[in-house]
Amino acid sequence: MPEVIPEDSAGLVTPLAITFQESLALECGAVLKEYTLSYETYGELNANASNAILVCHALSSNHHAAGYHSMDERKPGWWDSCIGPGKPIDTNRFFVVCSNNLGGCHGSTGPASTNPDTGMPYGKDFPDIAVKDWVHSQAKLSDTLNIKRWAAVVGGSLGGMQAMQWAIDYPDRLAHSVVIAAAPRLSTQNIAFNEVARQAIKSDPDFHDGNYYEHGVIPERGLRLARMLGHITYLSEDSMHTKFGRELQEGSPRSGYEMEFQVESYLRHQGTRFAAEFDANTYLLMTKTLDHFDPARDYGHDLTRALNRAKARFLVISFAGDWRFPPERSREIVRALLENNLDLSYAEITANEGHDAFLMKNPHYLDVFRAYMDRVANEVAAS
Amino acid sequence: MPEVIPEDSAGLVTPLAITFQESLALECGAVLKEYTLSYETYGELNANASNAILVCHALSSNHHAAGYHSMDERKPGWWDSCIGPGKPIDTNRFFVVCSNNLGGCHGSTGPASTNPDTGMPYGKDFPDIAVKDWVHSQAKLSDTLNIKRWAAVVGGSLGGMQAMQWAIDYPDRLAHSVVIAAAPRLSTQNIAFNEVARQAIKSDPDFHDGNYYEHGVIPERGLRLARMLGHITYLSEDSMHTKFGRELQEGSPRSGYEMEFQVESYLRHQGTRFAAEFDANTYLLMTKTLDHFDPARDYGHDLTRALNRAKARFLVISFAGDWRFPPERSREIVRALLENNLDLSYAEITANEGHDAFLMKNPHYLDVFRAYMDRVANEVAAS
Repeated sequence: MPEVIPEDSAGLVTPLAITFQESLALECGAVLKEYTLSYETYGELNANASNAILVCHALSSNHHAAGYHSMDERKPGWWDSCIGPGKPIDTNRFFVVCSNNLGGCHGSTGPASTNPDTGMPYGKDFPDIAVKDWVHSQAKLSDTLNIKRWAAVVGGSLGGMQAMQWAIDYPDRLAHSVVIAAAPRLSTQNIAFNEVARQAIKSDPDFHDGNYYEHGVIPERGLRLARMLGHITYLSEDSMHTKFGRELQEGSPRSGYEMEFQVESYLRHQGTRFAAEFDANTYLLMTKTLDHFDPARDYGHDLTRALNRAKARFLVISFAGDWRFPPERSREIVRALLENNLDLSYAEITANEGHDAFLMKNPHYLDVFRAYMDRVANEVAAS
Repeated sequence: MPEVIPEDSAGLVTPLAITFQESLALECGAVLKEYTLSYETYGELNANASNAILVCHALSSNHHAAGYHSMDERKPGWWDSCIGPGKPIDTNRFFVVCSNNLGGCHGSTGPASTNPDTGMPYGKDFPDIAVKDWVHSQAKLSDTLNIKRWAAVVGGSLGGMQAMQWAIDYPDRLAHSVVIAAAPRLSTQNIAFNEVARQAIKSDPDFHDGNYYEHGVIPERGLRLARMLGHITYLSEDSMHTKFGRELQEGSPRSGYEMEFQVESYLRHQGTRFAAEFDANTYLLMTKTLDHFDPARDYGHDLTRALNRAKARFLVISFAGDWRFPPERSREIVRALLENNLDLSYAEITANEGHDAFLMKNPHYLDVFRAYMDRVANEVAAS
């Protein structure tokens, strides 16, 4: 909880929501008759609506990307390190929009929402969502906000995948695509970890085949395990070692079965907190979305061909210690962009924090990111 | 199932067991009043009992290291690639012993065994077991078999840790210590993965606080998750990619929520098979044993000092693609051995199979291993 809002904060922000009273055709063939997107904005839209930045969120976050909802809020939005006055995504210069992805559990229509056909929560009947659907729904939001063309679409991890999909699906609607700590598709190991997380949720007796809402329970044990596991893949071996080493939890016996390492109680705590906040069906849905993301699939498994339609200029950033989406995966994207002769900046950042590095205040990272966004802001100012 | 037993197989083997009608004092302070060790032997003990090799098993295996129990057995013992006539541990030259670790679930006394004090299964009351206890009980077995000194104590992974502990605790009772794909202690990340596996088991409603035996159930869901997760850490990213890539399961839809990658059903299958065979309390116990293993702890966290008592000659082997216990961890052992001026061979094998490489028929690995064991056999012959 901030005693005073820091000067470089986006400040107190109020979540917004818009309900679209029109249907949305999804990639899977299903149709959402109506849908709501919750979102937040930071900064001011300029007169010709040319300074708008769309921020796309990762697997388990939401539309609260920066600032505080109230003076009582314990922590600011998830990307407060990068969004705010004077930060890389400078809210003095940009109008920033971040929406909760469709299928989410923070205000946007998702499995816990009421299915208009039944009057009950969708549960497991919520349709499959593809990254293309997120991009499509975000384009609808852009229309509503009268943003014809984003100065940049920006995201880390699964957010970076959305930024890439935007460049493919709406080549004329963004000037820049910023793809951070992402991959052109998941590796076999990535899918394997996701499947263990899904099985943890699905095998929880409180899951009730996805209809736990009507039983008044949540698959807390499964979600907790899913998060504990996910958390290990977000951190590097190095950062875990630095943070916890083999230190024992306070009060732990020095040996034996009850002996407890700090890292164990830390993970359990993370898992328990997450399980209290996040919807299990959303977790299943979003990991499946992530597994299935593969823009090259429709182009003979050739990412270069997939990106052939793109016109945006790109910033791609990867982190040396990221074993979830390591630099080699970003280089696949870079190679495909180069082969299309697209304007491109690429930075590989030395960092110790693993995949989570994209959320951290790493000076080199922030400098590279800021330098690029300054260029974007200067173009906006000159336009 | 073999139609004929291959010529280089240890052949048909019969599991043995010995019950010690004497107490065993454990590291944790508890005492086992009596205990059974199940074991197998391959080859013939020579007249002066100088050709005996002790093979130590890893987390989830057992005393069935080589050969077949019957012509109907689907697969040979877990280290059949390395034990048999003409193989690195050549049963024409050596007498090989492998016992199920104390606390196990394949015949040796463990949590599912009857507690003589209560007439009920030990369950969660089974005492903590340390690697030192395994070594101690194996020494008792050696006495019974009239083996005063092992030509070599050999093991991979947690088995390699036992081989190292043998050299520390019984410096005069082994000539060689062969430490394969091991580490001097677990990393924070190793512990973290183990804790997720334990939580999966403990949070299964069928776990009943470890006393599931009396409820006539097993925590099948938890064990299944634990194994799926473990399995990912045994394979390399590369080998998973080569084996499964992003190939879809036969009959899977090409997109959507029901779409299924081969790696997903493979992992589920592995998990289900394991859960039917392995005891959950043993899994909890052995992962804790592994987490707590740290021979340097009692020597001011100095591995060199811990190994100062060792007299054995060492072969240390690591595998490039092993991200569970990568070569850097073996090098820590090598460094400590060098600082003690101990006789040492070290090989870092280029392999694609991850941690499981130590079970595979990698030609370079087998050649290095065979060359070293030939030296051991020649010493035995000359003695």
